[in-house]
Amino acid sequence: MSAAPPVAVLGLGLIGGSLVRLLTARGVAVVGTDAAPATREAAREAGLRVADGVADAVTGADVVVLAVPLRAMRAVAADVARHLGPDATVTDVGSVKAPVRRALEDAGLGERYVGAHPMAGTEHSGFGASQETLLDAVAWAVTVAPGTDPDRLAGVLRLVTGPLRGTAAVLTDDQHDEITALVSHVPHVVATQLLNAVATAPVRDAALGLAAGSFASGTRVAFTDPARTEAMVGENAPWVAPALRKVVRDIEAVIEALEANGGAHEFFHAADPVRGTWSPGGRAPVQGEHEQVPLSGDWPGMLVDRCAAGAVVVRLTEDEAELRLPG
Amino acid sequence: MSAAPPVAVLGLGLIGGSLVRLLTARGVAVVGTDAAPATREAAREAGLRVADGVADAVTGADVVVLAVPLRAMRAVAADVARHLGPDATVTDVGSVKAPVRRALEDAGLGERYVGAHPMAGTEHSGFGASQETLLDAVAWAVTVAPGTDPDRLAGVLRLVTGPLRGTAAVLTDDQHDEITALVSHVPHVVATQLLNAVATAPVRDAALGLAAGSFASGTRVAFTDPARTEAMVGENAPWVAPALRKVVRDIEAVIEALEANGGAHEFFHAADPVRGTWSPGGRAPVQGEHEQVPLSGDWPGMLVDRCAAGAVVVRLTEDEAELRLPG
Repeated sequence: MSAAPPVAVLGLGLIGGSLVRLLTARGVAVVGTDAAPATREAAREAGLRVADGVADAVTGADVVVLAVPLRAMRAVAADVARHLGPDATVTDVGSVKAPVRRALEDAGLGERYVGAHPMAGTEHSGFGASQETLLDAVAWAVTVAPGTDPDRLAGVLRLVTGPLRGTAAVLTDDQHDEITALVSHVPHVVATQLLNAVATAPVRDAALGLAAGSFASGTRVAFTDPARTEAMVGENAPWVAPALRKVVRDIEAVIEALEANGGAHEFFHAADPVRGTWSPGGRAPVQGEHEQVPLSGDWPGMLVDRCAAGAVVVRLTEDEAELRLPG
Repeated sequence: MSAAPPVAVLGLGLIGGSLVRLLTARGVAVVGTDAAPATREAAREAGLRVADGVADAVTGADVVVLAVPLRAMRAVAADVARHLGPDATVTDVGSVKAPVRRALEDAGLGERYVGAHPMAGTEHSGFGASQETLLDAVAWAVTVAPGTDPDRLAGVLRLVTGPLRGTAAVLTDDQHDEITALVSHVPHVVATQLLNAVATAPVRDAALGLAAGSFASGTRVAFTDPARTEAMVGENAPWVAPALRKVVRDIEAVIEALEANGGAHEFFHAADPVRGTWSPGGRAPVQGEHEQVPLSGDWPGMLVDRCAAGAVVVRLTEDEAELRLPG
């Protein structure tokens, strides 16, 4: 573990704070900072190493993690570019990837950048909600572009699969952003719609009294901070909007079937192949085989091919990536 | 408890079987029957009193509960009409109410009928899945029409709030059917769409590997038997279709806002008044006050007014209904 390179984490909210806590616990040299003095103070009181600003935090770091809100990414990237050491790699934990890459390219850091997104969170935010366990052994998406430096990718994968004990799906930015639209942003929008429909109905009070089961699970995420949901959905608008158009088309087909007194058999059974292999409590215990991919040639491209088909990186040695194939 | 009138339950599936088990445990005289000999045999082996056919079951019953699938309701109602005692009341446990009332009216039983629907279930079906606890102390909807006999309504309310220990929201059929569209049927359709969208996407395998939180809860009910969901949605088509049209309109407004790079602030905050008072884990512990409504004049109409505003009947004495008002 002590072989892990020094890490700087910029932004000590829910994710940044949890990351510093976990890396500290694993013995990785890590320093954090935050724009808010009160947050820096709270992090120090929690026993973490905290710098007073970006310049101090970034100096001497081999990996810099941007854990600031998306709207701050552009300004912080410019600040980072002024202080970054010549070999340091930049990554992030943002929930969309293409806009972050554009911000870093505009700051002249495109060739240093490897995208990352831990698939974990809670309905809370801020350092006060951060926990050492939140990012322990979770699934990450790690994103690459055609110009991504393989050594920098290897460095991020070693951090994720080493001290952080996670798995990594190596994807393109677009694959990642489409996936998060489908598995997170669109579900947040439709949960909000389900809740709105009852909240604004004349039968609201009786409906809430009788609601249970399907309404409770269907609206669960609509009870998280709606301002945060609005921001998250807006940041991934290029993928969320077309995915919502598909929602509209699919629902319109169901309406037509209902109004024609016909069946919507195809709609209700379209996901039958998935029903046997995935469950909403998480995937069934993974029994998939492992595969070794040598870190030579276009190995990043090979990882993207494998991960698009459901494989994840579980370990990186000096010269091989170990993949777990879908079970 | 022994004062409860003898009950016959026709259909011993998940709900009918659970109802006979619970009434038996509470010391109510109850007999069940089912069209399937194997189901009758299983119910007898479970220690329940079982008749071999509708005629035997119905004879001597003061309350007859139709617990057969909706598609069988019409035929069973005609059979019941041939054997029913002159004073017996007919009720049911169907998940839609207006079509059941029409079936009973066509069988000449409209004046005997009070609708009922326990808001409970599991993803399983059949007598093998029935349990004594499933319908214990649950929320019921009890539905009335302008011609409903107040004494028959009182009888059903006494059964629900007495030996079954439940609460009852007294509603019109239309209120009930709109509410179940909003809190159950539409949530099932959109959960199915969320699952379909991922199941049919090129990024499916990577998406399922990264899916968690919002996707898991948003699709939970899409993992129940899709054929049963299709039937349930189709049976309430007159209310589900317009509710789905509202889904389409609302989602289209979000798409337009996203594509115009504008905010969808109103959409994301429309349910703010509800966020503080209801939670998907069920309503906060009810602190509402109680109100006594004398069983005189148009007391059924008064209960409908109160229940549409969120009140529920918790007890019926000889001359009063006790309501719990929303907290």
